[in-house]
Amino acid sequence: MTRSDEPTRLANVIMNLFRDQSVATKQVVADEGSTVDLIAGADAQDDCAVFRMSGDQELVVGSDYVRGPKFRLYEMGHLTEYDLGYYLAAANVSDIAAMGAHPIGLLSVVRYPADMSDETFESIMQGIKDACRRFRCPNIGGDIGSAERLILSATALGTCRRGGALFRSGAKPGDLVCVTAPTGFAGAAMEYLRAQRPDPAIDELHLATLLASWRRPSARVDEGIALAACGRVTSCQDTSDGLKATVECLAAASGVGITIFEDSVPLPEPVAAVAHHLRLDPLGLVFGDSVDFELAFTAPPDAVEQLRQEMALHAIGEVTDSGSAVMLGSNGELTSLPGKAWRHVPDQAGR
Amino acid sequence: MTRSDEPTRLANVIMNLFRDQSVATKQVVADEGSTVDLIAGADAQDDCAVFRMSGDQELVVGSDYVRGPKFRLYEMGHLTEYDLGYYLAAANVSDIAAMGAHPIGLLSVVRYPADMSDETFESIMQGIKDACRRFRCPNIGGDIGSAERLILSATALGTCRRGGALFRSGAKPGDLVCVTAPTGFAGAAMEYLRAQRPDPAIDELHLATLLASWRRPSARVDEGIALAACGRVTSCQDTSDGLKATVECLAAASGVGITIFEDSVPLPEPVAAVAHHLRLDPLGLVFGDSVDFELAFTAPPDAVEQLRQEMALHAIGEVTDSGSAVMLGSNGELTSLPGKAWRHVPDQAGR
Repeated sequence: MTRSDEPTRLANVIMNLFRDQSVATKQVVADEGSTVDLIAGADAQDDCAVFRMSGDQELVVGSDYVRGPKFRLYEMGHLTEYDLGYYLAAANVSDIAAMGAHPIGLLSVVRYPADMSDETFESIMQGIKDACRRFRCPNIGGDIGSAERLILSATALGTCRRGGALFRSGAKPGDLVCVTAPTGFAGAAMEYLRAQRPDPAIDELHLATLLASWRRPSARVDEGIALAACGRVTSCQDTSDGLKATVECLAAASGVGITIFEDSVPLPEPVAAVAHHLRLDPLGLVFGDSVDFELAFTAPPDAVEQLRQEMALHAIGEVTDSGSAVMLGSNGELTSLPGKAWRHVPDQAGR
Repeated sequence: MTRSDEPTRLANVIMNLFRDQSVATKQVVADEGSTVDLIAGADAQDDCAVFRMSGDQELVVGSDYVRGPKFRLYEMGHLTEYDLGYYLAAANVSDIAAMGAHPIGLLSVVRYPADMSDETFESIMQGIKDACRRFRCPNIGGDIGSAERLILSATALGTCRRGGALFRSGAKPGDLVCVTAPTGFAGAAMEYLRAQRPDPAIDELHLATLLASWRRPSARVDEGIALAACGRVTSCQDTSDGLKATVECLAAASGVGITIFEDSVPLPEPVAAVAHHLRLDPLGLVFGDSVDFELAFTAPPDAVEQLRQEMALHAIGEVTDSGSAVMLGSNGELTSLPGKAWRHVPDQAGR
């Protein structure tokens, strides 16, 4: 097992994985002729990456740290370091997708303990690279070096046409509330594997799908671009904080209410199977803190009909003029949204 | 002591520190009429920050993790959390300065343990904010949340005119090699305080200066902009890896040699005093892994004369056509550059 120093890893791993990146092809961002060219990427090994930009456009940029090696599923042996690298890139590109932007680059921060082998380091970088290729977002540099444990953070950049970025605010009463695909997979995977009470039927039929939500998460890049191109989407956010938190955030940011129709919420079979097996509320899994990276958005009903021609989507509710997010149950009763809210850890003072 | 959850910290600390940021004034970047407007910053609380960009320009972007709470001087009680926040911003903006770009925004990743108080969290963010103000680089968002210990990383963005970015490659034989100010302060501070052999004269005369290199590091933004505006600077890099590593990197990236003239290298009095007190080679401190955030650059002699009218600089050597970086000593002998090289930790396999 070899453990090279940082300059050697830059020379051997980074330069090998990312060679010739700085001669990227010209990317035309929008129909107004704006362009973005990467002229110095990871292989340039300079203080910064450099893009040459031309024309009117909007630059979107966001950073996400991921717990990575602190993921319970990693600690339990269900995720590899490659998976963590892949996840890091997907989670960051998802924020670009949620703004309706074309990804243009990812900066990755990968710090590692002194005893991490070159092979493990390379597998992390390969996971990042493969996810970047899938999401058409080149890894343009970042930071590598030592730390007392593996630390993963990144920044993704994207561009869209002037006025084209999708914000969380802007939902209007009468709009429909939609998601790009069913949610709850990541949360169900976590509940199922943490419980350590295997069900042969779930293992056979659903486990691969459940695990894929952690191993190969999808950033909805094409969908985000289509939503922005439509020109009538009024708000958008990814569901990485869970569907409940996302819907509540869209309502709060837009100053509107949202009514979710229980009967319209898709309940994926693997999620239903886990809920049944563990005697959990299936909608609690669908709305809870499941990190699925779908896009939740709002648009007028006729725009939603038009979008259905271009992409998969599920209309799950509508925007109202009252000030909160609620669910209209199959029984006709209004309740708050099911599931755990995002990271609302209780104040620990005095404990 | 209050320890609020993440949404509460977003609402109370972040929104209070960064309110009204998204109505930033228009920033004209270069004389060609290109513009950058921040239209969604930290206070927008969206998936990403958004800039509106117009015209031809180059976008530079880089990420740096900082050890922060693992700094020896923090562990020894010489740095506060405010200082770490300040350092994080300065270190990241320095990479923008080294490209000759105008800073336009900083994304900060601040993850903290569950037992960190609101007051400590706010002091970190205040340190970031104060550094950002000093370097005219608004903190436009990032990521906050929990981790098992304080983790600090960031990404800085900047713009410059088309063709204006300063790279590490490009030094030409005959160019002079310059630094914006003497180096060695940060390394000398580290050596002096780690040795725990106080010298009353150093404490009285120099300690404040030495500590300032860690507590209030300078990103050389104005100098970087002036170097780019000059139009004749052939290479540039910040000295955050130490002067020896920086000079060696400029030579390697440019495919040239560099001869440093020992007699031209500034030896600051506080660094000389520490070296004398601890019986260290003063030039080892000046060239070693001292993180000083000065700019090292190359330019033809007449351009250097012109730059002297606009900024402080020290010409310390010249570019040659041979392939390595060496020092011409006061005794007329050529040696390799003094000091420890950057992070060349030995391969630990087999130990």
